[in-house]
Amino acid sequence: MKTKAAVAVAPNRPLEIHEVELSGPKAGEVLVEIMATGVCHTDAYTLEGKDSEGIFPSILGHEGAGIVREIGPGVTSVKVGDHVIPLYTPECRECKTCLSQKSNLCTSIRATQGQGLMPDGTSRFSLGGDQLYHYMGCSTFSNFTVMPEIAVAKIREDAPFDKVCYIGCGVTTGVGAVIWTAGVEPGSNVVVFGLGGIGLNVIQGAKLVGANKIIGVDINPAKAEMAERFGMTHFINPKDVGNDKVVAAIIDATDGGADYSFDCTGNTDVMRQALECCHRGWGESVIIGVAEAGREISTRPFQLVTGRVWKGSAFGGARGRTDVPKIVDWYMDGKINIDDLITHTMPLDDINTAFDLMHAGDSIRSVVLY
Amino acid sequence: MKTKAAVAVAPNRPLEIHEVELSGPKAGEVLVEIMATGVCHTDAYTLEGKDSEGIFPSILGHEGAGIVREIGPGVTSVKVGDHVIPLYTPECRECKTCLSQKSNLCTSIRATQGQGLMPDGTSRFSLGGDQLYHYMGCSTFSNFTVMPEIAVAKIREDAPFDKVCYIGCGVTTGVGAVIWTAGVEPGSNVVVFGLGGIGLNVIQGAKLVGANKIIGVDINPAKAEMAERFGMTHFINPKDVGNDKVVAAIIDATDGGADYSFDCTGNTDVMRQALECCHRGWGESVIIGVAEAGREISTRPFQLVTGRVWKGSAFGGARGRTDVPKIVDWYMDGKINIDDLITHTMPLDDINTAFDLMHAGDSIRSVVLY
Repeated sequence: MKTKAAVAVAPNRPLEIHEVELSGPKAGEVLVEIMATGVCHTDAYTLEGKDSEGIFPSILGHEGAGIVREIGPGVTSVKVGDHVIPLYTPECRECKTCLSQKSNLCTSIRATQGQGLMPDGTSRFSLGGDQLYHYMGCSTFSNFTVMPEIAVAKIREDAPFDKVCYIGCGVTTGVGAVIWTAGVEPGSNVVVFGLGGIGLNVIQGAKLVGANKIIGVDINPAKAEMAERFGMTHFINPKDVGNDKVVAAIIDATDGGADYSFDCTGNTDVMRQALECCHRGWGESVIIGVAEAGREISTRPFQLVTGRVWKGSAFGGARGRTDVPKIVDWYMDGKINIDDLITHTMPLDDINTAFDLMHAGDSIRSVVLY
Repeated sequence: MKTKAAVAVAPNRPLEIHEVELSGPKAGEVLVEIMATGVCHTDAYTLEGKDSEGIFPSILGHEGAGIVREIGPGVTSVKVGDHVIPLYTPECRECKTCLSQKSNLCTSIRATQGQGLMPDGTSRFSLGGDQLYHYMGCSTFSNFTVMPEIAVAKIREDAPFDKVCYIGCGVTTGVGAVIWTAGVEPGSNVVVFGLGGIGLNVIQGAKLVGANKIIGVDINPAKAEMAERFGMTHFINPKDVGNDKVVAAIIDATDGGADYSFDCTGNTDVMRQALECCHRGWGESVIIGVAEAGREISTRPFQLVTGRVWKGSAFGGARGRTDVPKIVDWYMDGKINIDDLITHTMPLDDINTAFDLMHAGDSIRSVVLY
């Protein structure tokens, strides 16, 4: 079949809109009509050639929502007409990782996904006879895409695609890190470094689970107002208190340190602050942000020996098929706010505008509508 | 009263045996007759002036066992005649940390303990009218010592002092790290870096909880035999496989990485190996060893984002009054082996020999008998 898609032809080139060829779903696969997709920093990161594993030409996009239009042989978990969110972190429920019940990082199709291919080692996309690569197993910058059935989360049909697509990455990454990676308990003091989209989602996750103080840290005071609306109770600007006094300011504001801290900046120096502002004895720091290649985190081991814990989170620790539908419910129940985070919507033809807005810092999340 | 004690008069000087003055227990304190004490690397570390917080003149020693001989006003948790193990990590059950139920690092008397003083801010020891400082709240290199009641663990009376004194530090540090800090489950693959006394206790802790593979890593192959006796199932010598291939060798031997790893070396480069040999998705690395001042640990944040956890352990995560008596029971039940770890015993007059043996690498643990 033909489908309209935005093609990443090479690094640092605008996406090109084409009618591309899409072959139908094979065994265990489904054809999904993407109704909406967010444009995430990770797409930009790849498009800018910063991801050493980025492959071109390809169809980017990994934060979508849509409807199953066709199923391949053997598919049992979804049917035609089901509303789904594509999962760049699948959930096979059979691999060593899924069965460990300790991690959401399902490995069943990791090898081929990293190569831009479907699990059988081939691509479903082509343009003018030349193969196009899949991206993060999703390729949501295409009106239609093919996914393994283990990589789609079935969601309720009354959820609006143009909002819940954001659950496909950003919302789950932030809210999930609070709930599934950290397991923040009610009454905890939480510190969030970086008040972009992920930070705001961490904040609303912390509010959702009944955190006590929710301290936001950002060098841009303009971000404080939105953060407060999402649940931030205290704001610290490192430029005001002095960057070398941020840890002390947090320890002071929390009577000893954060119970949980989250890095949403990707800056390894900030990651160290996030660890060291944690409470002696039990404070846990979660790295969410993606660091520049080659950067390392450091601290004195004494920080850990005296009880702090350093961990990280990918896709919020969420098991995609199990947990993503829960977040959709929370949105529909008014427990989390997505609407205010989606600052721009546009048709696929204008998708490059979304990247421009992101680079200019003028958006939280842009969503492309088909 | 007078008591015979080994006095640390100054850094890098042999301990001196003196009859020192000991004033009786004040409110909330108990007088303990020390019957046996281990000599630990931490005592040597302080005596060598490496501990920036070391205070002289003082009475070192923190790994003892003895009998309560007198109680001060208000003491209710122990009585005269009770057998006890002194606790350098007390358990008040009332401070913020104890009540958190997330940490054993009771803070109730931390400030004065760090100053070499009892909780009322004074010392009970003196020599020739000059004050001697307490050490780690214990000062077990004295035939009699005074302790806060919250800093003694009551133990069964049939346990031999010359063995269970080792539970006052080394045994609990190693066995406890497995059980309370890491929570190793049966069937886990465990890797232990450094096969000294702490490493051997980690190994027997891992065996006690039913670990699957227990891999020991040490550059000294002579340590493998004893480690095997304690439960090690595989040995890796970095000098054989190449230091840069240790992580790969462990990942290979464990089908993906350690479920739990423990650093018992204090070497920050080894601490990094211990983290990076952990299984993607869930492997946890516990730092037990004490690093040189100024040294830092480093890794790529990707190691954490993909599910590894970095933490540390002090006194094995054990709550002293609650958990130390359990370890004594395990020893008495034959579940853990202490006898083979105590390689030398000597009277207090010969205590400097214990330090010499330690420096020569000729002992696992020396115990001083009174």
